[in-house]
Amino acid sequence: EEVAKLLELKASLPDEGQKKFVLKTPKGTRDFNPYQMSIREGAFTKIIAAFKRHGAETIDTPVFELKETLTGKYGEDSKLIYDLADQGGELLSLRYDLTVPFARYLAMNKINNIKRYHIAKVYRRDNPAMTRGRYREFYQCDFDIAGQFDPMIPDAECVKIVAEILESLELGDYVVKVNDRKILDGMFAACGVPEDKFRSICSAVDKLDKTFWSDVRAEMIDEKGLDPVAADKIGKYVELKGGLDLVDKLLQDENLMKESSAKQGLEDMKLLLKYCELFGVLDKVSFDLSLARGLDYYTGVIYEAVLLGFSHTPGSESEETIGVGSVAGGGRYDKLVGMFDPKNKVVPCVGVSIGIERIFSILEARAMASEKKGRTTSTEVYVISAQKNMLEHRLQLCKELWDSDIKTEQSYKKNPKMLDQFQACENNGIPLAVIIGDSEIKNNVVKLRIIETRAEREVPRSEMIEEIRKELANL
Amino acid sequence: EEVAKLLELKASLPDEGQKKFVLKTPKGTRDFNPYQMSIREGAFTKIIAAFKRHGAETIDTPVFELKETLTGKYGEDSKLIYDLADQGGELLSLRYDLTVPFARYLAMNKINNIKRYHIAKVYRRDNPAMTRGRYREFYQCDFDIAGQFDPMIPDAECVKIVAEILESLELGDYVVKVNDRKILDGMFAACGVPEDKFRSICSAVDKLDKTFWSDVRAEMIDEKGLDPVAADKIGKYVELKGGLDLVDKLLQDENLMKESSAKQGLEDMKLLLKYCELFGVLDKVSFDLSLARGLDYYTGVIYEAVLLGFSHTPGSESEETIGVGSVAGGGRYDKLVGMFDPKNKVVPCVGVSIGIERIFSILEARAMASEKKGRTTSTEVYVISAQKNMLEHRLQLCKELWDSDIKTEQSYKKNPKMLDQFQACENNGIPLAVIIGDSEIKNNVVKLRIIETRAEREVPRSEMIEEIRKELANL
Repeated sequence: EEVAKLLELKASLPDEGQKKFVLKTPKGTRDFNPYQMSIREGAFTKIIAAFKRHGAETIDTPVFELKETLTGKYGEDSKLIYDLADQGGELLSLRYDLTVPFARYLAMNKINNIKRYHIAKVYRRDNPAMTRGRYREFYQCDFDIAGQFDPMIPDAECVKIVAEILESLELGDYVVKVNDRKILDGMFAACGVPEDKFRSICSAVDKLDKTFWSDVRAEMIDEKGLDPVAADKIGKYVELKGGLDLVDKLLQDENLMKESSAKQGLEDMKLLLKYCELFGVLDKVSFDLSLARGLDYYTGVIYEAVLLGFSHTPGSESEETIGVGSVAGGGRYDKLVGMFDPKNKVVPCVGVSIGIERIFSILEARAMASEKKGRTTSTEVYVISAQKNMLEHRLQLCKELWDSDIKTEQSYKKNPKMLDQFQACENNGIPLAVIIGDSEIKNNVVKLRIIETRAEREVPRSEMIEEIRKELANL
Repeated sequence: EEVAKLLELKASLPDEGQKKFVLKTPKGTRDFNPYQMSIREGAFTKIIAAFKRHGAETIDTPVFELKETLTGKYGEDSKLIYDLADQGGELLSLRYDLTVPFARYLAMNKINNIKRYHIAKVYRRDNPAMTRGRYREFYQCDFDIAGQFDPMIPDAECVKIVAEILESLELGDYVVKVNDRKILDGMFAACGVPEDKFRSICSAVDKLDKTFWSDVRAEMIDEKGLDPVAADKIGKYVELKGGLDLVDKLLQDENLMKESSAKQGLEDMKLLLKYCELFGVLDKVSFDLSLARGLDYYTGVIYEAVLLGFSHTPGSESEETIGVGSVAGGGRYDKLVGMFDPKNKVVPCVGVSIGIERIFSILEARAMASEKKGRTTSTEVYVISAQKNMLEHRLQLCKELWDSDIKTEQSYKKNPKMLDQFQACENNGIPLAVIIGDSEIKNNVVKLRIIETRAEREVPRSEMIEEIRKELANL
C-alpha cells in the first residue's frame, strides 16, 4: 500500500523528461558571438579585397540543391552529404561545397567564362574536430576562373591569390603544395595501377597528409586490392617534392615518359612554376607528388596551402601537427560543368577555396592571447540624462543624431543613474557623450564630454551636430 | 527479326533516361547573378549602416537547429519547417526564422541584455510566389533588443529603425502598422472568445491583409468553432485604425476596459505613439486593430511595415495589390527566452525583421527599368599587350600592380588581340589600361591609357604605380 501511494505521488509530479531538453547547437556546429563575428568579418574583408583586386564578381546559390545535382561528384566523400527529409516534393541535399553548385550555375545559365568568388557555408557530416577548426557547418571562400584560356595562366593566378590572402592575414610562414592529376594518373599507370583503380588509389594517397605511408600502403593493398609491387613503386614517387629541378628530373624518367598524361602534366607544371616565379611567389610553392586531393572532379593542377609548423591549440603541440595547417585547397576541374550540360559542352575551370574556419581558429586564439579586446559596436555618441525626467529630451536628441547619421545610443531606462550611463560609455568604448539636464535645456545648450579625457564643454544646441562631427574627426 | 534488330539497336543506345536530369535550383529558391548580388549588397550595406547607427552588434547561429528547439514556437506555421533526413544522430530542422535561434542563443549563454542584428537565410516550405518576392529560402535582416527595460523605449526604437531603413532604400511612401497582442487578447475576451481559442482566432485575423473579412469570419465560425455573435463583434473592432485619437476612444470602451489586458495594452500604445512622435516618425505609424501577426510567440507590441500602393510587377496592378507591400514585421516576445531556460528565467525582447526579398524585387525591377547597368567588378587597371610574346611582361606588371593593391586584370590568352583587350576594358567599365610592347620595354616605360577619353601618355616604369594612383584619384 505504501508503495502504491508512492507510485501515485510520483505519477502526479510533472513529467521531467518531457520538459527538459538539451540546450545546444547541433553536433559539429557553433554560434558566433559578437566578438567572434568581428574577428570573422575582419578576415572576410581581407579575403574579399584580394578577390576584388583580381577582378572577381560574386554570385550566390541556394544552401540546398536537388539531390541528383550532387550525386556522383564527390567519390568516397558522398556519404558525408546531408539529405533533407522527404516531406513531399523534390529530394534535396545541403551543398557539400561551392564548386558543384558553381558548375551547375554555369551550365544552367550557359556561361562560358566568368571569374567569380563565393563566400558561403557548406555542410559535411564529417567527424567534427572543433578544437582544430573542423566543423560540420563551415564557411568556404571560393575563387574560380572559368573559361577556355591558354595553359596555366589562370592556374598561376590562383596560387598568387592564395599567397596574397595568407600574407594579408599574417598567419606566418606557409607553403603552397602543387601537383597535377595528369601527373598522378601517369604515375599510377607507370607503376602498374589498373585504370579503373586510379581514383580509389588517388584517394588513398590523399591521406598521406594525415597518416603514415605504411597505413596508406596497407589500404591500397588490403582494401583496394592493389599489387604490392605497384604500391611500393608509388611509395617511391610520393616521397618526392621540389621545384623546377624535380620537374626536369621526372621528365627524364623513362617509365613516366611512356605515359603521355604524365608528360603533359609535367610540361604544364613547368609552365606553372615559371608563371609563379613571375608572380613573385615561387619561393612559396612546392611541387609535391604526395599531394592528391580527395575529390573526384579534379582533372589537372591541384593545390593545397599549408601553414608551416603551426599548431593552433597551444599546449598540445606534441600530438598531431600533421595536416593541421591546411588552410586552402583547390585545383582544375575541366569536366564538371560538362556533367551538367545536356550536350556535354566543356567549360574548363580552375579555382581555390580558402579554409576560413582554421584561419579563424588561429586568429581567435591570437586575439584571446593578446587580451586587448576589440569593440563589437561602433557607437560614437551616448546621450546622457543629468537628472530625472529627461527621457523625452533624450529621445529628441537621439532622433537628431540618428538623422544626422551619427551612431548613437542611450539608456533604455526612464531615469537611469548618471554613473551607470558613464559606465556604459566606458564599457563599450563609446568616445563621446551628450549630456542634457535642466540647466542645459534652460540655456538651449548641451554638454559635450570626451569620455577618455573627461573634458566637458557646453555647445549651443543648434551647433551640436557640427561640434560632434569635429570631435569625431579628431579621434 | 526486323523488330528484334531494332530492339537490339535501341538497347545499344545510351540510356537517355539515366543521363538526363533536371538542371534547376530547388522549388522556391534561386541563384543570384553578379548583377543581382551588387543590388543586394547595396541594400545590405544601407540596412547594416542603420543597425550600427543604433549601436547593434551581430551574431551568427547555425542554419539548422535541433528539431526540438523549433517545436512549439510557430503555431500553425510549424508544418512549413524543413526537416533534415534522419541519417543517424540528432534530429535537425532548418531554421524557420532568426528569432527562435536568437532566444536559444540568449538562454544558452545566459545573456540578459544585448542589442543585436543578424542577417541570414531562413527556410519555409511555403507555397512560393516568386514574382512577388516570396521564396522558400530567403534572407531576413533582424534587429532585436533584449533586456529588462522601461516600457516602450526599445519598442519605439524598432519603429524608428524601420523608418530609417525604408527611407534610406527610397522605396516610396509607407506606413508602419502597430498593434499589441495584449489589446487583441483583451478584445477577444471582450467579444466572448474563449481563452483557449485566442491564438487560433488571432491567426485567422492575421489573414485580413491577404483576404476579405467574410472569409476570415467563415474560418472563425466554421473551422474554429467560434460563436457568430463573437465573430461579428470582432469584425467591428478590426475595422478600426488611427492614432492617439483611436487609443483614447478605445480607453472609453466599457467592454474593453473590463479586460485588464486591453487596458494595459492601450496604455502602452499611448506611450509608444508618444515616443514615435519624439522620434519624428508618428506620421508613418498607424495603430491598426486588424494587425495580428501569425506567430505564436508575440506577447506585446506587434509591427508590420507596408509600402503604400506598391505593385512591383508592372502590368498586373489590377490583381492582388493587397498584402504585396509588406516589407518588415516584428514585435515583442517576452516569454520566448524563458521557454529555453531550465528555470524559466524571463528575458524580455522586442525586434523587427526586414523583408529583404520583397525589397530586393522592387530594387531589381527598378534597376532593370533604368537600363543603366551598374558594374559588378571594381577593376581599376587592365594590362594590355601591344604585340605578341608579351605574356611574361604582363605577368610581372600584374604582380607589381596587385602588390600595390591596385585592382588589376589582364587577358588569360597568351597572345590576345589588341582590339579584344580594349573591348574588355569597355565592356567591364575598367577606367585605365597599362600598355606594354617592345618599344616600351626598350625605353623602360609603359603607356597609360584613359579608356573613356582614349588619351595615352608614356610614364617611366619606375613611376607607374604613382602615376596610376594619381589618375585613379582623379576619376
